[in-house]
Amino acid sequence: MSIVVQKFGGSSVADAGCIARVASRVARMAEAGHQVVAVVSAMGDSTDDLIALARQINPALPQREMDMLLATGEQQSIALLAMALLHLGRRAVSLTGAQAGVCTDGLYSRAKITHIDCRRIIKELDTDNIVIVAGFQGIDEAGNINTLGRGGSDTSAVALAVALEAELCEIFTDVEGVYTADPRIVKKAWKIPEISYDEMLEMAAMGAQVLQPRSVEVAKQYNMPLHVRSSFKSSRGTIVKEVAKVPREMEKELLVCGIAHDLNILKTTIFDAEDNSRDLARIFLLLAAENINLDMISRSSNRNGKQDISFTTGRDDKQKVEKLLKNLMEEMGLGGFEIVDTLAKVSIVGAGMITNPGVAAGMFQILLEQGIDIDMITTSEIKISCVIDETRVNDAVLALHTGFNLDAEDK
Amino acid sequence: MSIVVQKFGGSSVADAGCIARVASRVARMAEAGHQVVAVVSAMGDSTDDLIALARQINPALPQREMDMLLATGEQQSIALLAMALLHLGRRAVSLTGAQAGVCTDGLYSRAKITHIDCRRIIKELDTDNIVIVAGFQGIDEAGNINTLGRGGSDTSAVALAVALEAELCEIFTDVEGVYTADPRIVKKAWKIPEISYDEMLEMAAMGAQVLQPRSVEVAKQYNMPLHVRSSFKSSRGTIVKEVAKVPREMEKELLVCGIAHDLNILKTTIFDAEDNSRDLARIFLLLAAENINLDMISRSSNRNGKQDISFTTGRDDKQKVEKLLKNLMEEMGLGGFEIVDTLAKVSIVGAGMITNPGVAAGMFQILLEQGIDIDMITTSEIKISCVIDETRVNDAVLALHTGFNLDAEDK
Repeated sequence: MSIVVQKFGGSSVADAGCIARVASRVARMAEAGHQVVAVVSAMGDSTDDLIALARQINPALPQREMDMLLATGEQQSIALLAMALLHLGRRAVSLTGAQAGVCTDGLYSRAKITHIDCRRIIKELDTDNIVIVAGFQGIDEAGNINTLGRGGSDTSAVALAVALEAELCEIFTDVEGVYTADPRIVKKAWKIPEISYDEMLEMAAMGAQVLQPRSVEVAKQYNMPLHVRSSFKSSRGTIVKEVAKVPREMEKELLVCGIAHDLNILKTTIFDAEDNSRDLARIFLLLAAENINLDMISRSSNRNGKQDISFTTGRDDKQKVEKLLKNLMEEMGLGGFEIVDTLAKVSIVGAGMITNPGVAAGMFQILLEQGIDIDMITTSEIKISCVIDETRVNDAVLALHTGFNLDAEDK
Repeated sequence: MSIVVQKFGGSSVADAGCIARVASRVARMAEAGHQVVAVVSAMGDSTDDLIALARQINPALPQREMDMLLATGEQQSIALLAMALLHLGRRAVSLTGAQAGVCTDGLYSRAKITHIDCRRIIKELDTDNIVIVAGFQGIDEAGNINTLGRGGSDTSAVALAVALEAELCEIFTDVEGVYTADPRIVKKAWKIPEISYDEMLEMAAMGAQVLQPRSVEVAKQYNMPLHVRSSFKSSRGTIVKEVAKVPREMEKELLVCGIAHDLNILKTTIFDAEDNSRDLARIFLLLAAENINLDMISRSSNRNGKQDISFTTGRDDKQKVEKLLKNLMEEMGLGGFEIVDTLAKVSIVGAGMITNPGVAAGMFQILLEQGIDIDMITTSEIKISCVIDETRVNDAVLALHTGFNLDAEDK
């Protein structure tokens, strides 16, 4: 009998009615003859409510205790979903991350899964139980609760699917699949039937907000097919797999498979730092020590014999970056720094780019025609990203979608 | 360095402000040079909210999943209290029941603690941490979460105090200690400075609602002194210990140390059951199988050559009792049954009763003078209880408090 892992996000289990619907969905999969493991997130906004309460008590939000606190959100969801399945007359049992054998590295609030001891899950599946596992959490060697960071339930689901040698991992979400661009912006966007791990990774990392990038990395590493689909509809979504089948109507123009954008961009520029690699490395080591995730980086020597350094991070990191650089100003003899939080990033993604050198030029040309200034640029083998003013994001996404022949003909 | 266990109930940690106050209290005990273990309940009404949500999803409230769900309440409290202590600059760490090594017998929703593996707690205390432990919960041999039943946090605290060989276990509550009667009813009631385990047990079991009876049993078994005191005031409360020192002004009249009452009484009477021990035993075995806790029991042979059987339980058990007896009516040839939920129980408690045969007669006489009818009666070596109409409880408590010379002179 094959195992299927199904993951349901917070909006899918937001209230009693939603939980009952999810239970029906899980029960149907079991009735179809599969052993089912359901991975769930915390209900709706419950995590935000807990964070607000914690902030009243200790604004520093100490990480070990935040993990202890936030892990209760998923624990409530799994108990309630198991109750809903029992109410449908199914056998079901809920397991916390610790009980499910999800072992983590001990890094509070952003732990990584080191391995999964599946014995308890398999024992429960073999006694005909549907197993409900708390996403987002695991337990470290010392027995402490760790959380995987926001969106970590996707990673929990994929890691469990891999460990259980599942046939498939279904990710239920509030969108119907992966689109060529955000359908709220681009009316002619369409659902991509199949996409490769690498393309999905670029789409996800660029802010497509459908799947957590780490979960796609794990799926790619172990070649676990993912099915991203709607919690509310039964239609087929997007399959993420190693080699995506190219839709026939797209064959002649498959340079770009999608346009992604991300408003969570904070750009920091350091002026007139000493022009040596030691200072450059020092700054980035200190940023890493503060657990600040960097995205784009650029540096250039300037006319004063010094260097200017720019990098982007998430907007949440603004205070940490500001504090760090203030402390470094005098010590490192920096000329000054500037932090801008009114920028956004648009990206084009597609495996077809590798073999086609004109794609970057095409992107710049399209943005130019719209009168959109390009700030930073990064490129990889399958995507090109430009930082632009946040007020021009919709114009950029629309123009790129049309310019790279992605507009659906029947819309 | 001596260990002190402090237990805080749900009303003591109801919101962020309350949690901050509890943190100050715990920190002061640590500053006084003790190693402190704090045991906390779920915040205010959070448990009731979770039960209401679960009822929407599965009215049967399946026990394993209810324990999984309800255990999150204490897990949130411990994380928040630890954060509050960190905010005060203290070292603190929270532990779930499982992490604290609280091992239970696997009986969901009413588990008993089998033993406590204190290694983790001691390790944390020895690294100068204040340890915050989730009350009300433990883990069974199979790794499932069990809860101890309502009020189980008292038992968690006392069991931890015993296992850690603590010097003292302080129980913080919303009353200032154990009173000779409910001060809301009896203006002249006064706080008992010291009370023996047995007397406390009778007071607690009779509905004084200060301490869970199981916690007193554990304390008595291991001779662990308890200090029952107010969360909101710093005054001394009531010490519960093996041999209570009699207050000097009471020496001449220490027959009764307190008057307790309990409104949670459901009386069931079975008429015309077959008059043999087999049927009597069968009925009570079936009640036990439904986990219905019995309090008072009486039986009498009647004129029809049959027996009538009466017993009391908590009012929560009404539906279970009704269903069970309906099923038994025909099978056992019962004449009928009656369930009454408008009764209450008043009790007089005191170690002095053992050697004084006139006490019961005195109680009946006092109730008689008030025109209060007595229904069922039970007696033990240190208490006498009478079931009366619930509308006459206050009159009964007041009259007994006066009649047994408990009225404080300065009030």
